[in-house]
Amino acid sequence: MKQIEGGVTAPKGFQAAGAEAAVKYKDRKDMALVYSEAPCRVAGVFTSNLVKAAPVQWDRELVEHSDFVQAVVVNSGIANACTGKQGMDCCRAEAECAGKLLGIPDRAVLVASTGVIGMQMPVDRITAGIEKLAAAKSPSLEAGHDAARAIMTTDTVPKEIAVQAEIGGRTVTIGGMCKGSGMIHPNMCTMLGFVTTDLNISKEMLQKALSADVVDSFNMISVDGDTSTNDTLLLLANGLAGNPEITGEGPEYDAFCQALHFITVYLARKMAGDGEGATALFECKVVGAATKRDARVLARSVVCSSLSKAAIFGHDANFGRFLCALGYSGASFDPENVDLYFQSENGRIHIYSGGCALDYSEEEATAVLSAPEVTILADMHQGDAEAVAWGCDLSYDYVRINADYRS
Amino acid sequence: MKQIEGGVTAPKGFQAAGAEAAVKYKDRKDMALVYSEAPCRVAGVFTSNLVKAAPVQWDRELVEHSDFVQAVVVNSGIANACTGKQGMDCCRAEAECAGKLLGIPDRAVLVASTGVIGMQMPVDRITAGIEKLAAAKSPSLEAGHDAARAIMTTDTVPKEIAVQAEIGGRTVTIGGMCKGSGMIHPNMCTMLGFVTTDLNISKEMLQKALSADVVDSFNMISVDGDTSTNDTLLLLANGLAGNPEITGEGPEYDAFCQALHFITVYLARKMAGDGEGATALFECKVVGAATKRDARVLARSVVCSSLSKAAIFGHDANFGRFLCALGYSGASFDPENVDLYFQSENGRIHIYSGGCALDYSEEEATAVLSAPEVTILADMHQGDAEAVAWGCDLSYDYVRINADYRS
Repeated sequence: MKQIEGGVTAPKGFQAAGAEAAVKYKDRKDMALVYSEAPCRVAGVFTSNLVKAAPVQWDRELVEHSDFVQAVVVNSGIANACTGKQGMDCCRAEAECAGKLLGIPDRAVLVASTGVIGMQMPVDRITAGIEKLAAAKSPSLEAGHDAARAIMTTDTVPKEIAVQAEIGGRTVTIGGMCKGSGMIHPNMCTMLGFVTTDLNISKEMLQKALSADVVDSFNMISVDGDTSTNDTLLLLANGLAGNPEITGEGPEYDAFCQALHFITVYLARKMAGDGEGATALFECKVVGAATKRDARVLARSVVCSSLSKAAIFGHDANFGRFLCALGYSGASFDPENVDLYFQSENGRIHIYSGGCALDYSEEEATAVLSAPEVTILADMHQGDAEAVAWGCDLSYDYVRINADYRS
Repeated sequence: MKQIEGGVTAPKGFQAAGAEAAVKYKDRKDMALVYSEAPCRVAGVFTSNLVKAAPVQWDRELVEHSDFVQAVVVNSGIANACTGKQGMDCCRAEAECAGKLLGIPDRAVLVASTGVIGMQMPVDRITAGIEKLAAAKSPSLEAGHDAARAIMTTDTVPKEIAVQAEIGGRTVTIGGMCKGSGMIHPNMCTMLGFVTTDLNISKEMLQKALSADVVDSFNMISVDGDTSTNDTLLLLANGLAGNPEITGEGPEYDAFCQALHFITVYLARKMAGDGEGATALFECKVVGAATKRDARVLARSVVCSSLSKAAIFGHDANFGRFLCALGYSGASFDPENVDLYFQSENGRIHIYSGGCALDYSEEEATAVLSAPEVTILADMHQGDAEAVAWGCDLSYDYVRINADYRS
């Protein structure tokens, strides 16, 4: 497996576009299209929030009941959530418009939205945007990049990646893009993620791969603990790589899962590190846990803790906050038998063991915590289960962005 | 029942003191004593965090196994948490020192600490502080006030209250004090709370009253979602009011529970409103829920949401965030059948109904949200269960305080 340049347009047969539709933002691209020249198997995972945005409802139905899809229309600025019947009508209008322009059935068009909740969509501007997208779509890397930029809200950088692997005697390519960066506490994930591949795989195995993957990728990140109404991760596979169809487990399926996980972890980490107001990626690695479930719960609890996040922002070796977050996670362990370490590109410090703080240099600890990516390593000494969760620090800018987001 | 002046020294036979011990803070009182002239029944509720501070372990054992207690020694600045055997030795030294000076058994002395986790206690300064406290103790309201000030960490105001009620033919007085104001997400509560009363009541009924009470008082507040290692709420009853001992349920017990609840809700609201960096008390009232448990879960989810808290700080009528937090709470409901209102001393606005935003004035909504106490009212239209949770807004100051708390 190797990483290559590009994003959603890297796999064979995929095209993309970004366009200015002035949905809510001005003077920037705010609508994106992902289009496949050939029909695609599709898998999806969606928010577990009871309040589900209209596009989430639309896509869930299609992912469940459509055999093939061929396009995804995305807008940023307005989430089309808490919009009632009018919101569903907008999804239908988007699918009809895109279907007609692309010459594909309405039910082959997925939709996704991200932005302010509760505001109705400007359908006229949306359909005008779709016309621009259909006209501009292209298989170029630049087109994929335009799409990745168009779906951003408070993100500061676009997030995209592509890899290639040999599967079933063919070169298979997988590309992905996603956006954050607030209301991020996926529990599949206001993240939107789109992964494309030219792999030939059955719908059942595609969904199985995606559902298994998110548990240790997108579901292990948190920016603020708020699970959005719009979290959507879609995986489209058009089969153009020409490998024999994957219909069950085996080395080919495993090779795909491995490549997919590389993509999703890359995107999930990028999303966490670009969390609203973030100055650092905050990673918690738990090792020696009794069970995999415990390891996940412990790691997530630490990256979700406001006080731990604030300590990372302050480069403050206040290790008690991390231990405190492990303690209220719900997982069982002996606090006297935990080892805590801080590590980053600036070094590694063993800070807590045997129920007490170790003798460490504050200066050295501050240096370790001042890196752009900081890891808290917790060894629970209970078993051999491991998990990694990703978050970001809590900064003044998170408050600034969210005290006044709608304006 | 009527509110009277004072705090923990208001009930008959209770004394208190505050003293400068330089445990960690300089030039301020940082140790407190609550002392009863007569032995007290005691009830306690403690943090559910698996990582429990030494004083929590000390007090839990006493609350379970001692028939009577007579004093509580408290310090702020260092939490005596994650301190191993040395931490427990410090609790024992505190109890021995106070016992000797006050002429009571060591096992009649409860201890409590709040502050930085992981730092060892300066035992010499602590015992010197206890000497000052023993010498200074007094039944005056001023002494109670000194104690309430001494236990503060990042709190900006002391929190104390007292009420009187007629129970069993006698005037019974209840007094209380508490401190917040970060790492506050009590799940029985780095809150410390101390309630004193001269009521005559059995140990069993005292614990029953306290355990039932916290579910709808201290356990319904959150400042930052971090459940502390030190949360402690102690209720001491010395019987000096002279009422016939309460040994079971009935009108006397109910009258006490009602007065106790007035005290705990007052203190809990004060703690939430004085959360670290807070500019407003943020209350969520849920009505029409299917069950009492659902009502509590829903209300807590809203006041814990970082995005909802940031919206309150920004006076931003971004109602979707409140609905989103209801949606991921875990309680089941129909989002199309929820009504949302904003209310405060500046008015009331019906903002969401039937799955959509209502037509409201942004100006008016901003005015309602600009009050010092803001309530989000959610009517779930499922049943008649209600609950209220209290939190605070998320401000720049929360980040400032916590990025650099230890310094």
